[in-house]
Amino acid sequence: MIRLLVPAGALVQGETLRVDDDEAHHLEVRRVVEGSEVEALDGTGGRAVGVLHRDGKRWHVRVDSVTHEAHPAETLLAVGGGDKDRFLWLVEKAAELGVTTLVPIETTRSRHVENRLRQGTIEKARRRAREACKQSGNAWAPRIADVTPLEGLGLRHPNLAWWLADAAGAPAPTGIGATAIGWLIGPEGGFVADDLTIVERELAPVRVTLGVHVLRFETAAIAAAVLTADRRRA
Amino acid sequence: MIRLLVPAGALVQGETLRVDDDEAHHLEVRRVVEGSEVEALDGTGGRAVGVLHRDGKRWHVRVDSVTHEAHPAETLLAVGGGDKDRFLWLVEKAAELGVTTLVPIETTRSRHVENRLRQGTIEKARRRAREACKQSGNAWAPRIADVTPLEGLGLRHPNLAWWLADAAGAPAPTGIGATAIGWLIGPEGGFVADDLTIVERELAPVRVTLGVHVLRFETAAIAAAVLTADRRRA
Repeated sequence: MIRLLVPAGALVQGETLRVDDDEAHHLEVRRVVEGSEVEALDGTGGRAVGVLHRDGKRWHVRVDSVTHEAHPAETLLAVGGGDKDRFLWLVEKAAELGVTTLVPIETTRSRHVENRLRQGTIEKARRRAREACKQSGNAWAPRIADVTPLEGLGLRHPNLAWWLADAAGAPAPTGIGATAIGWLIGPEGGFVADDLTIVERELAPVRVTLGVHVLRFETAAIAAAVLTADRRRA
Repeated sequence: MIRLLVPAGALVQGETLRVDDDEAHHLEVRRVVEGSEVEALDGTGGRAVGVLHRDGKRWHVRVDSVTHEAHPAETLLAVGGGDKDRFLWLVEKAAELGVTTLVPIETTRSRHVENRLRQGTIEKARRRAREACKQSGNAWAPRIADVTPLEGLGLRHPNLAWWLADAAGAPAPTGIGATAIGWLIGPEGGFVADDLTIVERELAPVRVTLGVHVLRFETAAIAAAVLTADRRRA
């Protein structure tokens, strides 16, 4: 099945949507023919079946049926990640694994010019998140927050049970159902004592192990996503 | 702590080892000074503490104490992965997450020239696995097999409980302790019916879910590694 992305909220049964230039280019590259059935995703829970029409270089999709999927249980990953390529890679995996929110956090070791994510990277990450949804069939693209200070994180993202990735922690709690979970993943080199003071004071997290070896930030974040999805299934 | 890699089996207490050129280059780049304490890993369970000495451009390490870690419980990932970059990335993550063996398998959808892993990539993967051990502190580098046909996989890797990644499967079994586990991860597009016939006949796997969305092969393989390590802890 061919999938394509449409703007958030654009899917209305019986209407015809213009396919944007990027998506139209993908259709051309894949040699898709007019009249093909497609699945359209809007990244905010909308999933439609439609039929492609072509008018010269312009492609349209006629929306035949729409379903709206409920927002999944919140799985937020607050990640002290600095490296651009590793962060973008993580975004793709987060979309595949059903992460709902990814928050790049400013920590003592990831607040400097040389290892801080730039706004351009954040915007690229948002596009990457939607692209990965197209590939994986996830109707909900992860929201990618701007770089956020550790201080005040709990005010911006309230009502979460916070889990701190810590090799010396316990296995991830089981039977969490749809509880909203927020993970704290340190940067390369880890959180420093000042970071942990803020974390303990504001978020009072449970310490959860992701493995015995030193994990890169993106590996830890993916492991966190996998375990959270697993605990929701159990 | 500075870590460096030495050849398998090279760590003997009281002896002095020449540091190879790649590792010596890393020491220079990191501006490590003579007399520094280092941790040396041999990738086959050997972990030593030693002291660095320098003789012009040559570096040596005097091995002061050695421990040999037992081989961890076998976690084998048989992966129908074709894309080189994604495979190499997976190798790094496998080392961080304690995978013991990675087997690129030849499946109907990953046996063609354009999507088959080349021998050069396999050799690069073996170096990458050791490098990732240095970063993560894992004393056992994952073994990377040559590309292996699906047929006969169980003869080459006997005495494993086989788990087949399948979105419609059950959650990963719990309480596995140190049971040797072999995962079967399909290529992009999945195993075809002929592949599954071989798999069922020769390996009789349990079907285990890794998530509800379509996962790229490397995402599925990492999720498998994370869940296996989790089930060993529980």
